[in-house]
Amino acid sequence: MKSIFEIKNKETIKEVLDLAEFGTLAICKGNKPYSLPVNFVYLDKFIYFHGSVKGRKIDILKDNPFASFSVVEPYSVIQSYFSSKDNLACPVTHFFKSILIDGKVEFVEDYTEKIQVLSALMHKLQKEGKYKPLTEEVYKKIIDATTVYKIVVDNLSVKFKFGQNLSQERFDMIIKHLEKRGDKRDISTVKLMKEMKN
Amino acid sequence: MKSIFEIKNKETIKEVLDLAEFGTLAICKGNKPYSLPVNFVYLDKFIYFHGSVKGRKIDILKDNPFASFSVVEPYSVIQSYFSSKDNLACPVTHFFKSILIDGKVEFVEDYTEKIQVLSALMHKLQKEGKYKPLTEEVYKKIIDATTVYKIVVDNLSVKFKFGQNLSQERFDMIIKHLEKRGDKRDISTVKLMKEMKN
Repeated sequence: MKSIFEIKNKETIKEVLDLAEFGTLAICKGNKPYSLPVNFVYLDKFIYFHGSVKGRKIDILKDNPFASFSVVEPYSVIQSYFSSKDNLACPVTHFFKSILIDGKVEFVEDYTEKIQVLSALMHKLQKEGKYKPLTEEVYKKIIDATTVYKIVVDNLSVKFKFGQNLSQERFDMIIKHLEKRGDKRDISTVKLMKEMKN
Repeated sequence: MKSIFEIKNKETIKEVLDLAEFGTLAICKGNKPYSLPVNFVYLDKFIYFHGSVKGRKIDILKDNPFASFSVVEPYSVIQSYFSSKDNLACPVTHFFKSILIDGKVEFVEDYTEKIQVLSALMHKLQKEGKYKPLTEEVYKKIIDATTVYKIVVDNLSVKFKFGQNLSQERFDMIIKHLEKRGDKRDISTVKLMKEMKN
């Protein structure tokens, strides 16, 4: 089953990460997990995020660099009656794109890299520009007060669940129902179902 | 700063959890984190999710019940120029609702509770009904093949970041810009900003 949903195309993966607004960072201390949503940017195969120079996140990461990072993009909920013939609840499902990353966190100390990352984070949030470029001269204080982290990726797996495993009959029934309900997300879902099936 | 964004109202918290489509579960093995998005339901102050009877999630949870669970609901990106007078990048931000939970996972073995949870998960995805109710007679096979987990919550913290910390002047400038951009999310954001400020 797993392989049906797995995505290997690097551009597709980059696209998901570029469009994701938040990812969730999970770290451990004394074999107890701590997780939290973060804004991030995917740059040169690294996941970068930032934070303040104090707090639970930095305390844990100083001790234990192992990180798990995930992103999920929900698509349509597929109601059971879209494709159930016997009125059972089981066919209900939720289509999605997800990315799971295992890696190790490094602190970015190099000033040039730090500025590059903060510029990329800024660009992700505000593509239209309209701010003074991030240079040491203008932003030194705030750059010094910001910790920049980089996840060096050990493993990255991507899953797109869009009914690739379904029989053609059920697949077609679902498409028909989604087109009928027809909200914006359903339209995107139908498009992706057709792309993934090919 | 933290207290400005913190939410204590129980109904508000329940509402966020009821509307969230995915949460992220983080667990640890040998002080290394593993995290993944899950569908879940919030019921009687527990977070419930389910899974198959085999896999990495169940293997880890059998050994180590500690879990961190988080939910994030992104709202408007607040562009720097919405409130920056000196053309600096720093005021850029992203408004959001988030919930962070620490707890311990238990396996739900009791059949009645298992059916209750699966019914609630089903109801969350499909409020309109249109399926045979989940009874042991009809669904025994699939219930037996499903592991149901329950997070017993040790700590739950909720943050709504909607500019509560800003000066009235910057707050008003942001509202003006959001109303002008005016997409659906901006309208919800403005509504929440005003509610939170009061």
